[in-house]
Amino acid sequence: MKSCTASKSEITNLLAPLRKCLGEKNVLIALEDRICYAYDGSKQKYLPDIVVRPQTTQHVVEAVRLANEHEIPVYPRGAGSGLTGGAVPVFGGMVLDFAQMNRILEIVPEDLVATVEPGVVTQTLQTEAAKYNLFYPPDPASAAFSTIGGNVAECAGGITGLKYGVTRDYILALEVVLADGSVINTGRKTLKSVTGYDITRLLVGSEGTLGIFTRITVKLIPLPEKIETLLVFFPTPKDAVESASTIISHNILPRALEFIDKSSIDCIKGYRQEIELPEDANAILIIDIDGEEKSVQKGIARVKTFVSEHRAIKIIAASDAKERNDLWEVRRILSPALYKIAPYKINEDICVPRSRILEILHAINDTNSRYPRLKAANFGHIGDGNIHVNVMYEEEGDRPFAEKMIDEIIRSTIRLGGTISGEHGIGNVKSKFLPLEIAPQELQIMKDIKRLFDPKGILNPGKFF
Amino acid sequence: MKSCTASKSEITNLLAPLRKCLGEKNVLIALEDRICYAYDGSKQKYLPDIVVRPQTTQHVVEAVRLANEHEIPVYPRGAGSGLTGGAVPVFGGMVLDFAQMNRILEIVPEDLVATVEPGVVTQTLQTEAAKYNLFYPPDPASAAFSTIGGNVAECAGGITGLKYGVTRDYILALEVVLADGSVINTGRKTLKSVTGYDITRLLVGSEGTLGIFTRITVKLIPLPEKIETLLVFFPTPKDAVESASTIISHNILPRALEFIDKSSIDCIKGYRQEIELPEDANAILIIDIDGEEKSVQKGIARVKTFVSEHRAIKIIAASDAKERNDLWEVRRILSPALYKIAPYKINEDICVPRSRILEILHAINDTNSRYPRLKAANFGHIGDGNIHVNVMYEEEGDRPFAEKMIDEIIRSTIRLGGTISGEHGIGNVKSKFLPLEIAPQELQIMKDIKRLFDPKGILNPGKFF
Repeated sequence: MKSCTASKSEITNLLAPLRKCLGEKNVLIALEDRICYAYDGSKQKYLPDIVVRPQTTQHVVEAVRLANEHEIPVYPRGAGSGLTGGAVPVFGGMVLDFAQMNRILEIVPEDLVATVEPGVVTQTLQTEAAKYNLFYPPDPASAAFSTIGGNVAECAGGITGLKYGVTRDYILALEVVLADGSVINTGRKTLKSVTGYDITRLLVGSEGTLGIFTRITVKLIPLPEKIETLLVFFPTPKDAVESASTIISHNILPRALEFIDKSSIDCIKGYRQEIELPEDANAILIIDIDGEEKSVQKGIARVKTFVSEHRAIKIIAASDAKERNDLWEVRRILSPALYKIAPYKINEDICVPRSRILEILHAINDTNSRYPRLKAANFGHIGDGNIHVNVMYEEEGDRPFAEKMIDEIIRSTIRLGGTISGEHGIGNVKSKFLPLEIAPQELQIMKDIKRLFDPKGILNPGKFF
Repeated sequence: MKSCTASKSEITNLLAPLRKCLGEKNVLIALEDRICYAYDGSKQKYLPDIVVRPQTTQHVVEAVRLANEHEIPVYPRGAGSGLTGGAVPVFGGMVLDFAQMNRILEIVPEDLVATVEPGVVTQTLQTEAAKYNLFYPPDPASAAFSTIGGNVAECAGGITGLKYGVTRDYILALEVVLADGSVINTGRKTLKSVTGYDITRLLVGSEGTLGIFTRITVKLIPLPEKIETLLVFFPTPKDAVESASTIISHNILPRALEFIDKSSIDCIKGYRQEIELPEDANAILIIDIDGEEKSVQKGIARVKTFVSEHRAIKIIAASDAKERNDLWEVRRILSPALYKIAPYKINEDICVPRSRILEILHAINDTNSRYPRLKAANFGHIGDGNIHVNVMYEEEGDRPFAEKMIDEIIRSTIRLGGTISGEHGIGNVKSKFLPLEIAPQELQIMKDIKRLFDPKGILNPGKFF
């Protein structure tokens, strides 16, 4: 697989034409500017040689065309909140910062579609759609700061996946700048279309390695009338997991069905939130039911019965926005609160068939028992089998052990029919695990497709393969 | 684009090894056998040279491997009910008949997934899933006889598309025999997975031109508790179209929202059904509302109000299965009843943004007025903008005019931001229109992907391009 790298002289060649096209202030080469683009949510650091801040598709075309001509790596970047290194410029070169391409171009309620630029923050689209009584369901934990462009690149999931699906289920059409700087339009702004191969969905989740999105048309659905939330404490993880299964098997598809384990509960005790946590709670479920009001009330009542039958210790209900927000605070503070366990963590994103959840939790515990200096904290979207495993460690020197532990967890996941990434993507962080899940021949097909779209390997090199 | 054709001597070479692998009775070369495989729902006729009836993946592997070695075209076939020629062997060669690979391999309620062989009839999967209180939503009009394999190949849609999406939204994983006879497994049996490029969805809708499905894992959802149906008659198409918009704009997403125009109504009058049709009805909506019982009742009441405000002439409601079946009979008999207008038809499958429905209906009428010997009848899934335009004609000699009329309708569709195929696919019937919608560069990408998967062009040649 060809991957290109940048040299100083090549970057210099790009400066004049880029400044002419995009303006001086949108082409950054000062070290203090470039440092801001060296990081992402994966906490790696790779310094780009140049940062380009397009405002139009034409700016992207010009930047990519020049990069292709001079064989400079191009790293598209949304909010830089990705957790697998999707946005870090591992071979230097050019970062394309989409912060200024952040316009909602149209919301057409009658067609149930919106067209946006890639730099639109996910929550901004959710909020604007809600003004028309419409709903953009994909809801990654990062929605308040991550961008639609990044969400499409990674095929972001989130808490609503069980009921509403993930990003790919909402992408209808794309304007894409290809590696040679040409522009294609895939899909149509219609709710159905089967004309030709589904290039749109091939590009969703391609992590910026096949093309760069400049316009994104999404499907919207009517906003649910009502959401109610339950926070439920259980004596064992088994009770929580079995409650989840019982709820779904009784034809209730919750809008959210989140699981939090004992280690995670210990972290949030007393951490910036007011909910009193029962001493004997060893697992939590947070359950959102949405829909028409009467139906939600009935659903909540039934869920209360089911969780009680599974030995729930305590049930807290919330029906207005303020109360719901308080309950969800328990989940939201989890990531920062984890650092109470230890200052370092590796964050995994495995997904297994829901019937295998208890097995994978046991496997994680077993593995953990062999690494006593490490501590795993597990939480996530139990409704769709997607568990965020956080392996915490005290000192940088423990990292090799944490990596070994992760390796074992990944292998257990594959053995149970699971996937190494439910929603965070592969990037450079998980690329070493890709061959555990994808057989050589399918991997070769992916590499061939990459070569077809990007023969010089300039688009997000160092990722995936 | 390379397309291979078969010669008699090459076919003879295949006979002995195929008979050895699949058994005598599963390798057919008698004319009377082959004739049965020369047709599909598009009413074209192309005689295959050999028909192979696999019972296992290994049988498919052997057949495709031999075909590839001898450069014989391979035409996978489900029920042969497709409307765009997806299954007809336009260059002769081998038909692969999947009728015997029709086992439901597993339904796992806890995981909300099922794995099936491609020859399973869609309705059979729906019925079996319902025994577990589960729902496989894609519901093409052909569900009673079309197969899941064919549905995946064409990315079938149907009446539930507005609320539940289409086939691609339910396909999680595929076992696929590639052109060289090798087998890959794409996707995972998990509700989320973003590991590598989305080869699964690239293959969904690829019409048998990239690979041949031998196992299909689908996502299931809980079966809705209740369905109620309204059959509503309107004085004008405008009233029906505006009713549909009003319903959706009030946050009701019907399970089905079907439109039938005046020409179609005229056909069904007195044709094998008992519903009394008001004289002054110029449009019909059939509306299914599903969900939790109380919510359905409320939805139905609101819909009745909305359609009354849009001048509904008559509303017939049905809440039990028998009554619902009677109302839906009006829609089901449409296709055969159309032949009351004329003995010949061309059936189109355009889809426009819903806000453009009235414009496309006007455009079709305008076009029709210039072809007085022809008669257009329009019905379809108005909720997602997908209209089946049937151009009816009296004599074979009228066909060139019907084709001209279709050409104009297709161009109007594209002009209004629509797509030439909402759910029927391209096949060989619509391939001439593909360049109207897909720009040359994107078309070239599709051709390159085809070459990558199938360098000798043996898989369903003569389709798409």
